[in-house]
Amino acid sequence: MEIDYSKIKVIGFDADDTLWVNETYFRDAEHEFARLLSGYETENKIDQELFKMEMKNLEIYGYGIKGFMLSMVESAIDLSNGKIDNQTLGRILDIGKHMITHPVELLEGVEEVLHKLSGKYRLILLTKGDLLDQERKLEKSGLSDYFHHIEVLSDKKEENYKNLLEHLEIPVDQFLMIGNSLKSDVLPIINIGARAIHVPFHTTWAHELVKDEDNNGGYHTIDRLTEVLEFL
Amino acid sequence: MEIDYSKIKVIGFDADDTLWVNETYFRDAEHEFARLLSGYETENKIDQELFKMEMKNLEIYGYGIKGFMLSMVESAIDLSNGKIDNQTLGRILDIGKHMITHPVELLEGVEEVLHKLSGKYRLILLTKGDLLDQERKLEKSGLSDYFHHIEVLSDKKEENYKNLLEHLEIPVDQFLMIGNSLKSDVLPIINIGARAIHVPFHTTWAHELVKDEDNNGGYHTIDRLTEVLEFL
Repeated sequence: MEIDYSKIKVIGFDADDTLWVNETYFRDAEHEFARLLSGYETENKIDQELFKMEMKNLEIYGYGIKGFMLSMVESAIDLSNGKIDNQTLGRILDIGKHMITHPVELLEGVEEVLHKLSGKYRLILLTKGDLLDQERKLEKSGLSDYFHHIEVLSDKKEENYKNLLEHLEIPVDQFLMIGNSLKSDVLPIINIGARAIHVPFHTTWAHELVKDEDNNGGYHTIDRLTEVLEFL
Repeated sequence: MEIDYSKIKVIGFDADDTLWVNETYFRDAEHEFARLLSGYETENKIDQELFKMEMKNLEIYGYGIKGFMLSMVESAIDLSNGKIDNQTLGRILDIGKHMITHPVELLEGVEEVLHKLSGKYRLILLTKGDLLDQERKLEKSGLSDYFHHIEVLSDKKEENYKNLLEHLEIPVDQFLMIGNSLKSDVLPIINIGARAIHVPFHTTWAHELVKDEDNNGGYHTIDRLTEVLEFL
C-alpha cells in the first residue's frame, strides 16, 4: 500500500496503550471487581452491567479512572440489590486508587521511536481522559522532553482534532497521528484529511471497538511501534 | 494605590466563582451530605471529616466534582463506622450528579465586562479542575466566543502560570489575571511579575483561604467585576 508521508512535519502520539500500558489495568480492575461481587452474580453478568453503567455515565463523567470508580460503586449497589457491605465498597475504592497510583509501564520500543523521530519531526502528545491523571503519567514516564506540546482532550472526535490543528496552526496534510484506537486515533484523523498509523494494543476497551473493514488503503496498520520508522 | 495597567495586552479570567457560581453548590452539597449523615454525627464534625478526606485525597484525585463525590462516599463509610446503607450512598452519588448537570449561573456584570474588554484585549480563560466539567460549563455559559484561548490547568501555582505564559508567548508584564482566589489567581501571578485583580466571591473553599495581609500595594481588590472597567 502506497501512502505518502513526505509532507508530514508534526506527529501526534496517543498515550494510553500506545506509549504505555493502560487498558490492561482496567481489565485487571474489572476482574477484581467481579471477584468482590461474586456472591451476587456471574462474572459475565457483572462485566456486562458495569459496562452498561459506564456507558450510561460517560456523558456526565467523561473518560478516566474517577468516573470508572464512581460507576463501580453505583454498579455494586445495583448488582447486590442494595445489599453490598461497606467493607467491599471500601475495597472497590481501593481498586481505583491503586490504578491511579500505579507506576507507568512503557511499551516496547517507545523510547527508541521518540528519540529517533524527535530529531526530524515536531512531536505532540494527544490524550483523552483525566487531566491530572494524564499529566502525572507523562511525568512518571520520563518522556515529557520529547514533546513540543501536550494536549488532553475531553474526547477525540473529528471536531476535537480540527479545532486543535487549527489552534496549533498545523495544516492537515502535514499531520500524522499514531495510536492504538481505530475509533479515536485513526478514523477521525483520516476523515479530516490527515494521516494516521494504527498500532493495535492486544486489549481494546469495548467502547473503543470498531470493525476494521473501512481500511481501503487509507492508513497503515503495524504490529509494533518501531515499525513506524520504516515509513518516516 | 497606583498600579500601571498600560502595558497589559492579555487578560486571563478565572472561571469558577469569577464568571459563574460554583462554590455555593459545593456548600449546598456539603449541607445535604451532612443531613444524610445526621444520624451518625453533628454537622460540624461531618464537615470537618469530609474536608480532611478531600485534603487526603487531593493529591490523587485533583480538583473537581468527581473527586469530591469519591471523598463523600469514603467519608460516609468512615463516619458511619462502616454502617452507611446503600440507599444513602445512592443519594450521595445523586448529589454529585446533580452538581455536574446543574445549569450555569453567570455572576453579575460578566457579559458586560467581557464584551467591553474583548474589543481592547486578548482574553483567555484559565481554570483548574476537571476538563470535561469545565468545557461543559463554558459551553453552557454561552461565553466561549469571548475567549481566544481556554486552558484547564491541573493546578494554579507559579510554575503552572510560568509554563503557560511561555507556551502562549505572552510576556509577563503584558499579562493581567482576574479572579476570586487570592491563593490561585492573585498571589502566584504577582510572584511571577504579572498583574492581578482580586474579585472576592462571598464564599471561599477552606482550601483556597489565605490571609490577605500580603497586599502591600501589589494588586487591587474590587467588590464587583464591573469595577475592572475603571482600571482598563
